[in-house]
Amino acid sequence: MSEQQTTFELMDPDQLSLDLIEAQYALKSTRGQKNAKSLVVLVSGIELAGKGESVKQLREWVDPRYLRVKADPPHLIRNDETFWQPYTRFMPAEGQMIVMFGNWYSDLLSTALHVSEPFDDTLFDAYVEQMQSFEQDLKSNRVDVIKVWFDLSWKSLQKRLDKMDAADQRWHKLHGLDWRNKKQYDNVQKLRQRFTDDWQIIDCEDEEVRDQQFAQYILKNLKHLPNHPVKLRTKWAQADIPAELIHPAEQIMQKDDYKAELKKLTVKVAEAMRLSGRKVLITFEGMDAAGKGGAIKRIVKKLDPREYGIYTIAAPEKYELARPYLWRFWMKLLEDEKISIFDRSWYGRVLVERIEGFATDVEWKRAYDEINRFEKDLADNQTIIIKFWLAISKDEQEQRFKAREETPHKRFKITPDDWRNRDRWDDYLNAAADMLQRTHTFYAPWHVIASNDKYTARIEILRAILKQLRAE
Amino acid sequence: MSEQQTTFELMDPDQLSLDLIEAQYALKSTRGQKNAKSLVVLVSGIELAGKGESVKQLREWVDPRYLRVKADPPHLIRNDETFWQPYTRFMPAEGQMIVMFGNWYSDLLSTALHVSEPFDDTLFDAYVEQMQSFEQDLKSNRVDVIKVWFDLSWKSLQKRLDKMDAADQRWHKLHGLDWRNKKQYDNVQKLRQRFTDDWQIIDCEDEEVRDQQFAQYILKNLKHLPNHPVKLRTKWAQADIPAELIHPAEQIMQKDDYKAELKKLTVKVAEAMRLSGRKVLITFEGMDAAGKGGAIKRIVKKLDPREYGIYTIAAPEKYELARPYLWRFWMKLLEDEKISIFDRSWYGRVLVERIEGFATDVEWKRAYDEINRFEKDLADNQTIIIKFWLAISKDEQEQRFKAREETPHKRFKITPDDWRNRDRWDDYLNAAADMLQRTHTFYAPWHVIASNDKYTARIEILRAILKQLRAE
Repeated sequence: MSEQQTTFELMDPDQLSLDLIEAQYALKSTRGQKNAKSLVVLVSGIELAGKGESVKQLREWVDPRYLRVKADPPHLIRNDETFWQPYTRFMPAEGQMIVMFGNWYSDLLSTALHVSEPFDDTLFDAYVEQMQSFEQDLKSNRVDVIKVWFDLSWKSLQKRLDKMDAADQRWHKLHGLDWRNKKQYDNVQKLRQRFTDDWQIIDCEDEEVRDQQFAQYILKNLKHLPNHPVKLRTKWAQADIPAELIHPAEQIMQKDDYKAELKKLTVKVAEAMRLSGRKVLITFEGMDAAGKGGAIKRIVKKLDPREYGIYTIAAPEKYELARPYLWRFWMKLLEDEKISIFDRSWYGRVLVERIEGFATDVEWKRAYDEINRFEKDLADNQTIIIKFWLAISKDEQEQRFKAREETPHKRFKITPDDWRNRDRWDDYLNAAADMLQRTHTFYAPWHVIASNDKYTARIEILRAILKQLRAE
Repeated sequence: MSEQQTTFELMDPDQLSLDLIEAQYALKSTRGQKNAKSLVVLVSGIELAGKGESVKQLREWVDPRYLRVKADPPHLIRNDETFWQPYTRFMPAEGQMIVMFGNWYSDLLSTALHVSEPFDDTLFDAYVEQMQSFEQDLKSNRVDVIKVWFDLSWKSLQKRLDKMDAADQRWHKLHGLDWRNKKQYDNVQKLRQRFTDDWQIIDCEDEEVRDQQFAQYILKNLKHLPNHPVKLRTKWAQADIPAELIHPAEQIMQKDDYKAELKKLTVKVAEAMRLSGRKVLITFEGMDAAGKGGAIKRIVKKLDPREYGIYTIAAPEKYELARPYLWRFWMKLLEDEKISIFDRSWYGRVLVERIEGFATDVEWKRAYDEINRFEKDLADNQTIIIKFWLAISKDEQEQRFKAREETPHKRFKITPDDWRNRDRWDDYLNAAADMLQRTHTFYAPWHVIASNDKYTARIEILRAILKQLRAE
């Protein structure tokens, strides 16, 4: 850093401004292109170092219409919300940039400094690691994240506090921190050094240098467009297709038995979900006509309509495609339902998107880890994740398609797409096999349900939910 | 209503369910079609009448994946938020339906019953009228709104309370109302009768009749597809184009004078906006290259980047097109910035959408009133609205376009679209004339700024802001 300072050269401000504007427009024009990206700038630092002033100066140099600024007071990190959830709404689309004053690191710092129970280094470092993984996943998905720490020495901070008039003295207690307290200052410095290794550190003694360092760093990163890898570095091995996917067990349940069992289980499931004390997230995947809709109907049978949300997932919209593929699911989870049921889900990335080529080879192969991290973050924050693959045989599907075509009120359920997907049956089985092998985790296990017989399948699904709720 | 009851016929539940599902899929398939609509069902009523049960039964009969249910506790109506703002996020897209337990009427009831200052009948009725206008605007924009009141007599309510066990007794004080208090019950009935004229009233003595009445009413309304009028009922008279739009005043300001004046005014504007105690909403319209971006830059010059948001409005996305055209602006206002600046705005409806035929004749002609109501709602709730039309001459525009093409860092600002719009110069002037005449209101006035000289224009804009802020 000292080296940076000695070699740092001020630019002509007009030239800097022109370059920034040009880079902004160049970024904007990447939307929808192969080299598309968006830029998130995380800004944190010592009070009075001048991060507000630097962003203000930046906004004067750039075209302010294309620089969004987000500034909320810090959130304390909660145990029923992932650290990234408060920022979901601010995720920029391709071609956009945003400066975040409040960000997950400032939340972490505030939490570490304020919670009554000691926040030990191990936990602190675990959060930092999660945050860095999250940023890596953002980068892989075209969202560049850069981080800038505005630093100020203890001596300079005290001088700046001295110079403030009495009316402004409240600043030194901003956000509950006392900047006159040397021990607290040292503590902030000690803690932030646990995460600022990959940050741009700006020494804020000199205001002009500070503003230019910040703006030039942004400029450099605006110009840097990502090079999306076309090959995966690790070797790929296709999983074998489990027999239960090809030939699901054939068990027939009598209607009377089904009705009696259903009545008992629906009540039990409703109670168990209510009493679990956590959020419950249920996802359904499976071939068309495997019985997802019917199963969902039985799960919610004894619930009050205010207790749950059902999300039916179709192709993403254009504005969703301009953001990381998981983003549209983050947005749905913001509704914060006690019980959320997904009729198809983020697994579309490794199923339909893989098969139809909507995701590149590298993208869908990387997605298993990304999805595992996403589910882990949720599971770590009070969410029980229950995943179902409904397995039917190819013959059974054909019969159901035909029945749908012949029944007036079911005709809506069948489209030419369904027949087209059927032609790729084996591709879907292969994709399902990989998915089951790579995303079956202890915190978010898969349940493969033999579904040729609808009654048996629904009962098995309810039993699996009960089992997983009790196991928690 | 008594008549309804005597003639009401129960349907076979299986048939009702099939009809509902069929109607749901028919609704779903209207998306993007000429007869597209969405359906909002507002549900309110006496406690224990059974609205929860009826929605639950409805959700069992329909395909629950395509029936969204929103259920928040009531919000008290605030004076810094319009009554519809808490519901913006729940506005369904074409082809969707939603049941809202909490809704603007339940908020109004709760507020009338709970605020310490008496909420007199005149104010209550004024709210009801605003709500009905809002719903009318929704309907014109393809969102059908139906309203169902679940009613229960005092005697039956007391009987139901008697039958509840002690643990459930908390219910009779739900949402702060005491349902054992006859005076309060009478008050609720008296108040709700001020708005339920156009509601479906369901007598909830009999549960089966209640559930069926509700479901059949939904069915009837699902089947009813809107007939969008193709002709306006009132006569249309094109406004004359004001001379100031064609030949903006030519005043030249010297750079030194500009710089000195700018320095003073930017500070004053920043202070005035901060001190106003209200939200400030500034919109810019005008021909391409009229100087909107430059003006915005000067307005925010002395503001902290955390104090304002700039919204640059381009063509709507597909998901936005599936909702009322004002919705995408409602969403932006949810960010609740103290100062919001719109570089183009909802006036696109009566400018580009009118001229390019994206809105039908009836749609854009109706939009003036809709926009006036929208702005009135905001103005009534602590928002100062300042609107600018930047007027340049056709020759001046040509010179600016050429300058943009010749300057590297401005080349991004000019696109083939700009030249195309220029060919329709006179159409835009006519549209602007109508807009200025029909939406220049005392609560949201227009300022036409002669903009051939950029310096003069920027100074005039800052002065206009100051003037309007002081006039408030």
